Amino acid sequence: MSKAYSPSRAVSASTIDNWDGEADVVIVGFGGAGACAAIDAAREGARVSLLEVASAGGGTTALAGGQIYLGGGTPIQNACGFTDTPEDMEAYLSMAAGEGGDAQKISAYSRDSLEHYQWLVDQGVEFNPEFYAGKHTNTPEYQSLTYSGNEKGYEESQRAAPAPRAHKPHAFWEEGGTTLMNALTDAVLAAGVSVHYDSRVLTLVVDDERVVGVLCRQDGEVRALRARRGVVLCSGGFIMNREMVARYAPRLKDATPIGNPADTGSGILMGISLGAAAVNMDEAFVSVIWYPDGRYCEGVFINARGQRFVNEDCYHSRGAHHCLNQSGRKVYMVVDASIYREPPMYANPQVVEVGESFAELERDAGFPPGSLTSTLEEYNRFAEQGEDPFFHKSSEFLRPLNESPYALLDFTIGPGMYYPAFTFGGLDTTIDGEVRRPDGSIIEGLYAAGRCSAGLPRSGEGYASGMSIGDATYFGRRAGRAAARNG
Amino acid sequence: MSKAYSPSRAVSASTIDNWDGEADVVIVGFGGAGACAAIDAAREGARVSLLEVASAGGGTTALAGGQIYLGGGTPIQNACGFTDTPEDMEAYLSMAAGEGGDAQKISAYSRDSLEHYQWLVDQGVEFNPEFYAGKHTNTPEYQSLTYSGNEKGYEESQRAAPAPRAHKPHAFWEEGGTTLMNALTDAVLAAGVSVHYDSRVLTLVVDDERVVGVLCRQDGEVRALRARRGVVLCSGGFIMNREMVARYAPRLKDATPIGNPADTGSGILMGISLGAAAVNMDEAFVSVIWYPDGRYCEGVFINARGQRFVNEDCYHSRGAHHCLNQSGRKVYMVVDASIYREPPMYANPQVVEVGESFAELERDAGFPPGSLTSTLEEYNRFAEQGEDPFFHKSSEFLRPLNESPYALLDFTIGPGMYYPAFTFGGLDTTIDGEVRRPDGSIIEGLYAAGRCSAGLPRSGEGYASGMSIGDATYFGRRAGRAAARNG
Repeated sequence: MSKAYSPSRAVSASTIDNWDGEADVVIVGFGGAGACAAIDAAREGARVSLLEVASAGGGTTALAGGQIYLGGGTPIQNACGFTDTPEDMEAYLSMAAGEGGDAQKISAYSRDSLEHYQWLVDQGVEFNPEFYAGKHTNTPEYQSLTYSGNEKGYEESQRAAPAPRAHKPHAFWEEGGTTLMNALTDAVLAAGVSVHYDSRVLTLVVDDERVVGVLCRQDGEVRALRARRGVVLCSGGFIMNREMVARYAPRLKDATPIGNPADTGSGILMGISLGAAAVNMDEAFVSVIWYPDGRYCEGVFINARGQRFVNEDCYHSRGAHHCLNQSGRKVYMVVDASIYREPPMYANPQVVEVGESFAELERDAGFPPGSLTSTLEEYNRFAEQGEDPFFHKSSEFLRPLNESPYALLDFTIGPGMYYPAFTFGGLDTTIDGEVRRPDGSIIEGLYAAGRCSAGLPRSGEGYASGMSIGDATYFGRRAGRAAARNG
Repeated sequence: MSKAYSPSRAVSASTIDNWDGEADVVIVGFGGAGACAAIDAAREGARVSLLEVASAGGGTTALAGGQIYLGGGTPIQNACGFTDTPEDMEAYLSMAAGEGGDAQKISAYSRDSLEHYQWLVDQGVEFNPEFYAGKHTNTPEYQSLTYSGNEKGYEESQRAAPAPRAHKPHAFWEEGGTTLMNALTDAVLAAGVSVHYDSRVLTLVVDDERVVGVLCRQDGEVRALRARRGVVLCSGGFIMNREMVARYAPRLKDATPIGNPADTGSGILMGISLGAAAVNMDEAFVSVIWYPDGRYCEGVFINARGQRFVNEDCYHSRGAHHCLNQSGRKVYMVVDASIYREPPMYANPQVVEVGESFAELERDAGFPPGSLTSTLEEYNRFAEQGEDPFFHKSSEFLRPLNESPYALLDFTIGPGMYYPAFTFGGLDTTIDGEVRRPDGSIIEGLYAAGRCSAGLPRSGEGYASGMSIGDATYFGRRAGRAAARNG
């Protein structure tokens, strides 16, 4: 076994002289999806091996802020005085997923949300029944509940009663992901899962179209590990694989990858090697952040033609979607003196111009005469009446820009501006994580969950914080159970 | 062999008891790509079988207007008084392909364009050295040369000297594709290719990761056809496969598929079954047509917020790209009495409102007060000076809208409006048509060309008429030659 292996080329079981180890279920990757798959597979009575390329578990989930999109009337929602129903949650997630949404997954996830909440609590994940009402990317202290998407948006709120659904484990600020993974790691070990770190899965082993194991590099050796019932791929997305990004999501090339270094798409490639459908590959969370603590939501986004293009109080990845969607991608924010004190958190937009009037900004920045001023005067005219008939920004953030001087901030993607991105594309799976070919048939013995599958999050325009970890943990569990029961 | 075969599942050669036929090169699909692959494979000395599911050849190429994107100084360009260089052509095609462009293919295609022109002439394709200067979707009579993209656009013309590059075979109006395929069909037969109609290729046959043949349904029987050197997939895109569209390009669901009924993506699925990378799957030609004879290019596109969003003299698929890109997809065109006589060719926009003034249109159609009027007054103010600083519409079509009454036409995608679409996604191939896995490795014995591969056309925003047939014929030839020389 000295040849070079590629995740893009599975190997035949006939080439395996003898297995170096075996389990009922082999799980690839110890992030949120892999941990939950391992726990529930073990609880089903399976002997589970969990292989992690890094020297510790956690994956990208541990790096995240840790919000989990849960609803339908969780104890935390109720304690904070909010009502929610599975139906409203399902309606909202359907809008959020957009045209590529997986209706079956959205429905199952919404209906089982209370059960999944309780399951997380049972694993030792604590939530703090405190609501954060501000505008931020995460709750800034220990609060567990907040709005994390566009639930209160004009379109959305007409079609689904808004409720805050981001549930962050009880932890300070951005430590929610680490806190979540600490609890899940304890649960993995308590469930009797056999965890192997520093174990890079190289490729799948197949026997007559059925996945029967993996080749894995451990201690410098290639070992063949047999999976009697199934392999569950939970190895993350592909944002760290620049070749895959160039091939499958070239639009992301100027964005900043976020994730862990192992988000190289290896699980997706392993599925593709066996004829799986990889779908939604061009879509991603791409963000630009302007709003903590909400002050910059009072500003006005402007494109190169002086046109406004989005409600400035929308979720940050929706804002970025529209920023990147403007012809030529050149975008600005106009603020007045009451907004601008320091650059917004996470962003570092350069001040292009400062002026005493809109006309001065317009002239000095080279906008066509009358363009920027007419947009801003129109904005102010409506804002004075408490209206935004164009984009329906909430009254909370709607006020005329009228305290000079005014500043034009450059929000264009490029050096100096932070547009973080991770991918939404991956293997097409059933609600039980079974990996499908394009004709809908199942690849026997192969499962996937988390960001190496295409799950709830399908669109950067519709994303809400917590959808990815929610998807990874819930469908990770389902994939683990399905693999444990297989064959 | 009574089981159901799927293009998503290749079969092993070990299941073939005996081959029912064999050739050096088996070509799947008799459209533009397949015809050219067959001709050049046969010229290389290979025994070629060309399998076509329909009862006659032609494919989608024969249904098309027949423009072929050629340049670099063709005899037709020269005869019509235009100069062009391979460098300008390459620069333009790079812009047209956008971020997902294949630089190697663009370069090879541009450098070999004169050779490819001559090759087409040698097959009996005649071109008429007459230039059509009007604004249309194709030359309206027998003219062979016209501008077919955004070559004269503001950005494009600054980075590549514009030249007309659409070469339609000598034929009346939209008969260019049929005329082209008639010539190529004669050449296929003259080259000694063995053509089999009513032959549906079901799936690939593989032997130790190498493609060695196909299963094919002929006369109601499943036959195994051996391909000693290679199989070339030329079976078209997937716009007629609604499940694939839903899975891979959900954005297209409201568009009208154009192509032939066999554009079901079967070749793409066959490649995927062996672990090939399928890329650019979300992208497509999507069009909406407003401009023959150019009169409607004088109108003004408007979104639901009363904003203008594109130069109205751009190529039709760029216009459609921007129409579909507006939030909520609601789009209109405003025209005046000098423009509106009958609906534009191919489109049938409903007249939403007619009014004596912009203010009347605005009020009656429910735009926010001042929004539509300020956009149109600004447009007129600049147009009177011969300027369009926002989108740089050509002076040819730039004039103020000032002949009342004015009309607001609904260009929103949906019932009644024609948004034709075909797909740009397909198998990732080398410039010689070799089908690649995501890791760049080659699947032995497998080639693809035309719209079942990802070729020159990568973006609806950048497409120009003739790029798809140009790509299919040129890279079809290369794939045929490479297969003929293989092994």
